[in-house]
Amino acid sequence: MAGENEPGTVRPGGRTARVREAVLRAAEDALTELGFTHLDLADVARRAGVGKTTVYRRWGTVTGLVADVLLDMAEQSAPRTETGSLSGDLKANARLVQRTLTDPRQAALFKALIAAATGDTKTAAALHRFYDIRVAEWAPCVRQAVERGEVPAGTDAEEVVRAVSAPLYYRLLIGGGPLDEAAADRAAEAAEAAARAGAYVRGREKPA
Amino acid sequence: MAGENEPGTVRPGGRTARVREAVLRAAEDALTELGFTHLDLADVARRAGVGKTTVYRRWGTVTGLVADVLLDMAEQSAPRTETGSLSGDLKANARLVQRTLTDPRQAALFKALIAAATGDTKTAAALHRFYDIRVAEWAPCVRQAVERGEVPAGTDAEEVVRAVSAPLYYRLLIGGGPLDEAAADRAAEAAEAAARAGAYVRGREKPA
Repeated sequence: MAGENEPGTVRPGGRTARVREAVLRAAEDALTELGFTHLDLADVARRAGVGKTTVYRRWGTVTGLVADVLLDMAEQSAPRTETGSLSGDLKANARLVQRTLTDPRQAALFKALIAAATGDTKTAAALHRFYDIRVAEWAPCVRQAVERGEVPAGTDAEEVVRAVSAPLYYRLLIGGGPLDEAAADRAAEAAEAAARAGAYVRGREKPA
Repeated sequence: MAGENEPGTVRPGGRTARVREAVLRAAEDALTELGFTHLDLADVARRAGVGKTTVYRRWGTVTGLVADVLLDMAEQSAPRTETGSLSGDLKANARLVQRTLTDPRQAALFKALIAAATGDTKTAAALHRFYDIRVAEWAPCVRQAVERGEVPAGTDAEEVVRAVSAPLYYRLLIGGGPLDEAAADRAAEAAEAAARAGAYVRGREKPA
């Protein structure tokens, strides 16, 4: 996977694409190092080796730039793993989230983006779109599990995928224990058990 | 519940306690209105009607003040509801978290505190302590469920309580749907189903 064809390091397109690439990587660097509060378009332009006016003209504001970082992250999102069972698929998803959130650069970037979204509705909307795309990529594993009879018909596939992530984001942002592989596996198993029990069936009455 | 004896509005103690009360409420107001980034000790002193030097001498820094806000929130934390069943207790917990996170002032305050914790290790430690206290208050409902045979022996009570909150914090911070009572009930039911299936048993091997 490493080398010059690693996903995300080389892209098609001409100068415009190269400028966007350089600016978005620089914006990620700045977010990772300084957080959203100190993100500054002039600093990003300097880091990217791009003229300040180009950055102001194309992205306008810090929140506009962060929204484009999130759009780019969604575009680069890796395809889901298919293992043939709900258990395997949810564990693969949980491990991917766990690896992402424990990579120092990615952890800092996600914390900065989530913190930014708490204080700005446009950034929050961009963050929601990013996660909607990620969740939609993995939801078919739950729909396949419905077809295989592993979980009840009417199970909300997106909600099961979010349930796998939720305890891992809780550990990242709030605490409660290490964000390790055991936490990932437990998150996947808990979501699967709840799904099998029908907890994510849409619009049902609560069972007695 | 309303009126001058409402919890948290009147406290025992002399001038020192009254000053702390005024400063902490002012800090919460400032966090709610402006977020952590723009929190300023001089502004908090002005809002509280307290001398600036008093605030600097007692709390020192913005992070020191936020840590005391979190300590005070933990001290004021309401006792848990006991309903006699795990299902009822977890639903009461989920509804309490959901009401807190949809109250406009509390939602803004929690978002500000969580955002602050992403960028500062002392604030993160104070946030973790606050949630450890809240989780410890509710954990006995799971231990009672173990005694009643509702969930397997060895179930990690704290982890079940965190599992109830995690999807609600996910909706607050990341998205995925409304933070309504249905979301609270689903979070409680999912945590209960996973606990019954043994997903939160400590240190067990994964079942086949």
